[in-house]
Amino acid sequence: MSNSPNIPTLFDVAREAGVSTATVSRCLNEKQKVSQKTLDHVMKTIEALGYTPNFNARAMAAKRTNTIGAIIPTMENAIFARGLQAFQETLLTHGYTLLVSSNAYKPQLEEEQIRTLVARGVDGLLLIGYERPPEIYSYLERRGIPFILAWITLADQDHPSVGFDNCAAMRMLADKVLSMGHRKIGYISGIIEGNDRARGRLEGVRESLAAHGLDPDNLPVIETAYEVETGAQAFEAMMQADPKPTVVMCGNDVLAAGAIGKAKQMGLRIPDDVSITGFDDIELASILDPSLTTIHVPHRLMGGTAAQELITMIEEQSSGVRRTLDVRLELRESLQAV
Amino acid sequence: MSNSPNIPTLFDVAREAGVSTATVSRCLNEKQKVSQKTLDHVMKTIEALGYTPNFNARAMAAKRTNTIGAIIPTMENAIFARGLQAFQETLLTHGYTLLVSSNAYKPQLEEEQIRTLVARGVDGLLLIGYERPPEIYSYLERRGIPFILAWITLADQDHPSVGFDNCAAMRMLADKVLSMGHRKIGYISGIIEGNDRARGRLEGVRESLAAHGLDPDNLPVIETAYEVETGAQAFEAMMQADPKPTVVMCGNDVLAAGAIGKAKQMGLRIPDDVSITGFDDIELASILDPSLTTIHVPHRLMGGTAAQELITMIEEQSSGVRRTLDVRLELRESLQAV
Repeated sequence: MSNSPNIPTLFDVAREAGVSTATVSRCLNEKQKVSQKTLDHVMKTIEALGYTPNFNARAMAAKRTNTIGAIIPTMENAIFARGLQAFQETLLTHGYTLLVSSNAYKPQLEEEQIRTLVARGVDGLLLIGYERPPEIYSYLERRGIPFILAWITLADQDHPSVGFDNCAAMRMLADKVLSMGHRKIGYISGIIEGNDRARGRLEGVRESLAAHGLDPDNLPVIETAYEVETGAQAFEAMMQADPKPTVVMCGNDVLAAGAIGKAKQMGLRIPDDVSITGFDDIELASILDPSLTTIHVPHRLMGGTAAQELITMIEEQSSGVRRTLDVRLELRESLQAV
Repeated sequence: MSNSPNIPTLFDVAREAGVSTATVSRCLNEKQKVSQKTLDHVMKTIEALGYTPNFNARAMAAKRTNTIGAIIPTMENAIFARGLQAFQETLLTHGYTLLVSSNAYKPQLEEEQIRTLVARGVDGLLLIGYERPPEIYSYLERRGIPFILAWITLADQDHPSVGFDNCAAMRMLADKVLSMGHRKIGYISGIIEGNDRARGRLEGVRESLAAHGLDPDNLPVIETAYEVETGAQAFEAMMQADPKPTVVMCGNDVLAAGAIGKAKQMGLRIPDDVSITGFDDIELASILDPSLTTIHVPHRLMGGTAAQELITMIEEQSSGVRRTLDVRLELRESLQAV
């Protein structure tokens, strides 16, 4: 932990002031947690020694592993693939190696994986969404591990994040669907428990219905895992309703791909017999036949920005920012007016 | 490193024999690297103390991190997703956490990632394919890190592996294509340098042509990255040939998806105007319109088996096996006879 002899370290300050390094750190970063007397004493010592946190940052750099961890809900489909690839590419240009873990959409697994990655010495973490037990956040803060959340931003949360407003995004698509005359809407949602992105998207459809004078509680919703096969099953179930929906909106493109496949098996023409929409604009969306109307999420921009912000947090010991990215409506063949 | 007092350890043997633990280990595992005199001396000490490597294995177990690393060529498309998910699921049931790294098909990156994962303390590694600098294998052997190779097995290699014969698999598909009367074949290959799976698949087509009395050197081949967009570009270029191919075989389903999309843009009917085939049978293959004729690779079985074999290597300090899995032809709409 030694620096060049002329540059005082955090340890020099602590020794000189007769306090722990944690106390010095709190005086610099969390003043409200120390007594005024301690704060005054430590700040005087800092001035006397000419210590600056920047030099400390350089000293800390020597302890770094240049390894970043990411925990994503699934590796099995393409939802996170493109954003993660961009995240990694940006890390690589800054000399960091990425280690990825998947919690298979099991929130209880995530905590164990976070502890594993921290035990393996990662310098920082990328996590998806906000929703997790508060103990995880306090653990990360206690251990001083910088982290950034992606795939979502929420106005009432202040953790560092790079993402988008899932509710507003799906609301934009639902507004379009309603403006094209659809009134019999079915919605296939991802599993909402532990997934704030899925919850936001459903809320966006409900908000749109309410704004158009329709009762959101009448919206038929099937909740299922984000898989092609489950999307197909949910679509089949949804088409048993009487009257049938004129449009089936899906919580993501993977579910929509399953719905399109099943519609063909059932002899339904898309969009003549029923319209189908997705969310994400993964590569598959434009290859499907008919091509899929969806919300375009800037996955590569999101991954690259998250990497840059996280590196800044690590290297400059900054507290991170909240960045909300724009999404856009991608109108393709699978949606038409009724 | 202490064991129960009555069970001698590797360290006890080394101390008693007056040699290093590495020398004891070599006497047990690499006899050819020690002199006959040292070997005799150490083996006598081992007998005298009643040391057995099995007890040593138990002592080693205490040092384990229960973390496994995997390095895959890409996270961006679905090629490795399903196998990796199964690999992780099996690891989880045995209490291991998986950390994944992607080398973006850059072999030089893989070495750095292997060193990072070893430095982070992984108990074992999953790697894709055989082809890598010999220094990597000697590094892993020197460090005593168990590893297993997946997605390929080759008769002339003896590293532990769980995979399939890429050449024989593509040969099976090419034999079928030729048996349906096709003689004007085009082939879109993945980048072959550093990718023994891509090389094997191309070789399979060439073997089939030769077996049917055709000159493999006349096969038009375009080599490109495994992406939808590059598959589309390669398909367009291939259809400029005169005479046009009656079938375009693709090195994997991702390239084939791009080819199908481009064919539609070009106003070509598949399979009436041109047949298209893939390799892998990723979920997308059966959703494409027309559905894709391909080779079905048992990705989930491969991932699960690789995990089980690797765990056995770690926990029983065994040297690993070579498992070749069966693949099958999946005939769908995109291929028809000429």
